[in-house]
Amino acid sequence: MTSIGFGIIGLGRIGHLHAQNLARGVHGTHLVAAAVSAEDRDRLQASGDAPCPLVSDVSALVAYPGVDAVVVASPASLHLDHIAIAAEAGKPIFSEKPLADGLARSQEVVDLVQRAGVPFQIGFQRRFDPAYLRARHLVATGAIGTPEMFRGITCDRIAPVEFLRTSGGLFWDLAIHDFDAARFLVGDEVAAIAAVGAILVEPALAGFDDIDHGVVTLRFQGGALGVCQAAWRAPAGYDIRAEVHGSLGKVVAEVDEKWPARLYDQRGLVAPRHDQFVERFNEAYRAELQAFVDALHADREPSPGLLDGLRAAEIADAAVRARRSGGWIELSA
Amino acid sequence: MTSIGFGIIGLGRIGHLHAQNLARGVHGTHLVAAAVSAEDRDRLQASGDAPCPLVSDVSALVAYPGVDAVVVASPASLHLDHIAIAAEAGKPIFSEKPLADGLARSQEVVDLVQRAGVPFQIGFQRRFDPAYLRARHLVATGAIGTPEMFRGITCDRIAPVEFLRTSGGLFWDLAIHDFDAARFLVGDEVAAIAAVGAILVEPALAGFDDIDHGVVTLRFQGGALGVCQAAWRAPAGYDIRAEVHGSLGKVVAEVDEKWPARLYDQRGLVAPRHDQFVERFNEAYRAELQAFVDALHADREPSPGLLDGLRAAEIADAAVRARRSGGWIELSA
Amino acid sequence: MTSIGFGIIGLGRIGHLHAQNLARGVHGTHLVAAAVSAEDRDRLQASGDAPCPLVSDVSALVAYPGVDAVVVASPASLHLDHIAIAAEAGKPIFSEKPLADGLARSQEVVDLVQRAGVPFQIGFQRRFDPAYLRARHLVATGAIGTPEMFRGITCDRIAPVEFLRTSGGLFWDLAIHDFDAARFLVGDEVAAIAAVGAILVEPALAGFDDIDHGVVTLRFQGGALGVCQAAWRAPAGYDIRAEVHGSLGKVVAEVDEKWPARLYDQRGLVAPRHDQFVERFNEAYRAELQAFVDALHADREPSPGLLDGLRAAEIADAAVRARRSGGWIELSA
Amino acid sequence: MTSIGFGIIGLGRIGHLHAQNLARGVHGTHLVAAAVSAEDRDRLQASGDAPCPLVSDVSALVAYPGVDAVVVASPASLHLDHIAIAAEAGKPIFSEKPLADGLARSQEVVDLVQRAGVPFQIGFQRRFDPAYLRARHLVATGAIGTPEMFRGITCDRIAPVEFLRTSGGLFWDLAIHDFDAARFLVGDEVAAIAAVGAILVEPALAGFDDIDHGVVTLRFQGGALGVCQAAWRAPAGYDIRAEVHGSLGKVVAEVDEKWPARLYDQRGLVAPRHDQFVERFNEAYRAELQAFVDALHADREPSPGLLDGLRAAEIADAAVRARRSGGWIELSA
Repeated sequence: MTSIGFGIIGLGRIGHLHAQNLARGVHGTHLVAAAVSAEDRDRLQASGDAPCPLVSDVSALVAYPGVDAVVVASPASLHLDHIAIAAEAGKPIFSEKPLADGLARSQEVVDLVQRAGVPFQIGFQRRFDPAYLRARHLVATGAIGTPEMFRGITCDRIAPVEFLRTSGGLFWDLAIHDFDAARFLVGDEVAAIAAVGAILVEPALAGFDDIDHGVVTLRFQGGALGVCQAAWRAPAGYDIRAEVHGSLGKVVAEVDEKWPARLYDQRGLVAPRHDQFVERFNEAYRAELQAFVDALHADREPSPGLLDGLRAAEIADAAVRARRSGGWIELSA
Repeated sequence: MTSIGFGIIGLGRIGHLHAQNLARGVHGTHLVAAAVSAEDRDRLQASGDAPCPLVSDVSALVAYPGVDAVVVASPASLHLDHIAIAAEAGKPIFSEKPLADGLARSQEVVDLVQRAGVPFQIGFQRRFDPAYLRARHLVATGAIGTPEMFRGITCDRIAPVEFLRTSGGLFWDLAIHDFDAARFLVGDEVAAIAAVGAILVEPALAGFDDIDHGVVTLRFQGGALGVCQAAWRAPAGYDIRAEVHGSLGKVVAEVDEKWPARLYDQRGLVAPRHDQFVERFNEAYRAELQAFVDALHADREPSPGLLDGLRAAEIADAAVRARRSGGWIELSA
Repeated sequence: MTSIGFGIIGLGRIGHLHAQNLARGVHGTHLVAAAVSAEDRDRLQASGDAPCPLVSDVSALVAYPGVDAVVVASPASLHLDHIAIAAEAGKPIFSEKPLADGLARSQEVVDLVQRAGVPFQIGFQRRFDPAYLRARHLVATGAIGTPEMFRGITCDRIAPVEFLRTSGGLFWDLAIHDFDAARFLVGDEVAAIAAVGAILVEPALAGFDDIDHGVVTLRFQGGALGVCQAAWRAPAGYDIRAEVHGSLGKVVAEVDEKWPARLYDQRGLVAPRHDQFVERFNEAYRAELQAFVDALHADREPSPGLLDGLRAAEIADAAVRARRSGGWIELSA
Repeated sequence: MTSIGFGIIGLGRIGHLHAQNLARGVHGTHLVAAAVSAEDRDRLQASGDAPCPLVSDVSALVAYPGVDAVVVASPASLHLDHIAIAAEAGKPIFSEKPLADGLARSQEVVDLVQRAGVPFQIGFQRRFDPAYLRARHLVATGAIGTPEMFRGITCDRIAPVEFLRTSGGLFWDLAIHDFDAARFLVGDEVAAIAAVGAILVEPALAGFDDIDHGVVTLRFQGGALGVCQAAWRAPAGYDIRAEVHGSLGKVVAEVDEKWPARLYDQRGLVAPRHDQFVERFNEAYRAELQAFVDALHADREPSPGLLDGLRAAEIADAAVRARRSGGWIELSA
């Protein structure tokens, strides 16, 4: 088995994590080069923290000797451009979610990647988390009978307002993981959506009609109901859970505690929770890249793919519209 | 302290439980007599299971020597009539929920009890459950800061269709406990409601426009959001949980396991769940009656009272209307 | 059913708890009078906290009008005298553990109570704890097959040295509960004992050859092995657990958390533990008295009884001797 | 970084696991060849399951081109011979526990490896388990104050009698992991040992004076006490736990559940437990080899090393003698 050389676009928090996994953690691959902004390049070179050679633009990266495949970890507003460059160069692409900023541009990503015919995987890392994997397995093998009710929640600390202004906000940036998890765990498509939101944390969100607390109600094509709750508020640590109730039982994916050993001191049980999603999903981030690399080696289609990215974008888009209208939005089948 | 003599109206499952608690479990009280249907009287006398003298109608009961107070445990459709008789006789009343069948008749109950000026308590027993009590205490003392999100779920096995036809259905009969819990735990009133439902268990519910799965979204007056999920489906046992997220933390009331000791056998951990609400809330049913008796002895106003019953009825009524309209229903402040 | 009048000897922490339960908590009984020291009488009368009329000696108490039965809650060194007085007066006796201070005097208690023929129950309240009860039920009904290994632990904050000097120390005062639990849960008698101890908390214990940490190894008559660990050290709260492993499974009695609802704040899960045994076993203390009163009303023999007290004393005595000798002590069958 | 080529001695259950980890799982290494018995070679070649070229003896393996280091996964009775061959060839050695069969031969292993001066690591994989690692970290950083009491338990399904006859039995084969965990978690050496055993599962063990249930009591040099319970009986799955109580708190390493997501069905919570130690410690087996490879690359001394193996052997040897004598065995400091 030859090792697949990766180029990575962006070395922010999530890009850095992917770079580390490519350098050590994932088998059958190695990190070749990264495209970063001039500013980031100077910073990384000054600190000596650059994990690989750095180039200044994405075109240079995809042309870099030994770059066989690309990880897109740039801001969502640049995904369309960067995916386009990599696709035109015929490189297999692993892209962070969402596909792009907005539904129309997400559809453009789908079209251009399909035209280019390159392998594509989207970074819904929860699908590789052991708890979500086990939950999906139990649902898929009939352990709970027919799914009837989905329940997801994601609470994280609020991101900077300037980031939220361009990232798409609560539904596109945070709840999109629950939208994908709903599809993944229930094994069905969403048919209709209603939503409500509130500003309880950051008044400045009103300036661009965003929210920091939201509840999205789902109706699946098969008739099941679902609820996604999301909040930019996590005083007790990153809080993420999902459950599916079925006709014969229910399954709960819930990993609260940060430590595998339990400390009891004068406070009683001391059970700190995960502080950051990269910590909670550390292994899942490694495993999703391993799955992508394995798919490339085996010439299999990676998953979750383009249409999984598009479906989640459709739900996020409908959730925003439903929240503003106060009524139900039907999704085309 | 003299002992307060109770008469009880109805000796069905819940009436029988109250009768047992009055006979042994609650201090400062004793059971005097019960009003039951002729059919039930014959059955109880034949089996020798009557816990006290039986009379055939409610007027006879409230006039029975030694009956100082009354428990109403008859079907919801008879609550208005039975409460009226007891109130006119000047007897303190402990009534099972809901106040009455439907919002208008619930308002009638409020009016006539207020006119009679008798002490009144409604059977929202969750308020006396140790987990709910502790959760309320933590919220009320500021342990989680300002409440921002409520989350309740109640799943029970489906009742007979004939019962559901007259009981008010999923929202009036089952979710009403979550509606009260939402108010109790958050400590705020509900301002607006949306709802959706599905029939996944019992097709016959379509005949009277009821549902067996429902999701109710709440907006509280203070701005917090909430979700109540309810289902007539509980394959793994009676499933009831509630949580409140606040600006500084969250509190979760969740009592899953039926046994206080844990058995591990060849199946691994064997953790059976409560099968029936009377089992899950066994102690709460005792404690709510004790609280009522204590209030009578101390000449204090019992709680939860008339207006708690009315508020829950308003929410249930709005939830039904919101589900049918697909839009939001505002509650008057 | 007539109410049984109780006199109580001693109103210290545990006596006060029993008095409260007799006054309210236990059905079919009432508190008549208490015998306390002159010093305690003055204190209680000054503070107005006396729960009932006080007398100055035990002979006066058993002769007090309306005293039908007696609770012995005096120091262990006085148990023999107080039980003798009550037994001679023909009163049914509920006594705190241990039977007496030392094995010989425990045997005297057995002899004199048997001669008097009065009903007797000893205060091993764990037998009435829901978790221990369920564990015993699971063992007794064969859920774990044949018991093969017992495991008990009790950690409490150290009592004052002056108390320990006369109370019998770690094995007689604290571990005796585990010795009884071992017999109760396994359902077999102890055949041989080894023990080791250490002083890690209170150097003054060396002055009377006592310890603050101890490990007692047991061999049961049926061949099962067991371990009791005990310590006067409980930085994270009162810590008490027991488990029985059998040929088909195991059962664990473990109630760690003080609150039935779970709080998560910036520390993560906040799960305080019970601070005091009277808090952990609050309900068990009520239930054991109820069981005693019920047995008196039904003219049944109370349990655990004299021989349960004696067996535990034999184990405590052997554990002390085994610790000092470093070898095994066989108990007579 | 050049990749280190490994030869492996033995491809039984544990050898196969190490071979898989060397082939994929551990970075900076690759599997070159394996030495297996003629019988095993025929079986593996017939089934096509050989993970690498096979040789028929250990001398051939250490001389095989590209074999830079060796994993010893042969039966304990052959460890001394195989380690000797590898050490003489100057190869770094990773050996399964125990060092050898019996204390004298364990000492021989120490001597010959020290003479050869080759890097050596012993397979106490629990030290690489996330729960044990975290527990050790909490103890080492003072979170529980001074360790005062250790508590370990290991229950596994009984191995075939013929295996036990030569493997050293319950203490050498199974409890040895707890002996090492006691030293690792408490951070102190064992000063004295007492032990008791019973035959409750397999009568044939009496034929070579072995047991299937054992309790070992430990006194540490610093004064702490400890208990190790071990049994060849695990009806509810592989059961392994450890805790350390200290002056300021306690820490518990306990991983019961096999699944990271929880299933509830008509049985209630369905929480299967690990069935095999290779499943429970799957990640730890990978991580210990990674640590060994990393140490070789960095020219650091691997850990746990020779003396950790020897200390555990001394405890196992003393435990056997203490069980037979019924008294305490002091270990030389």
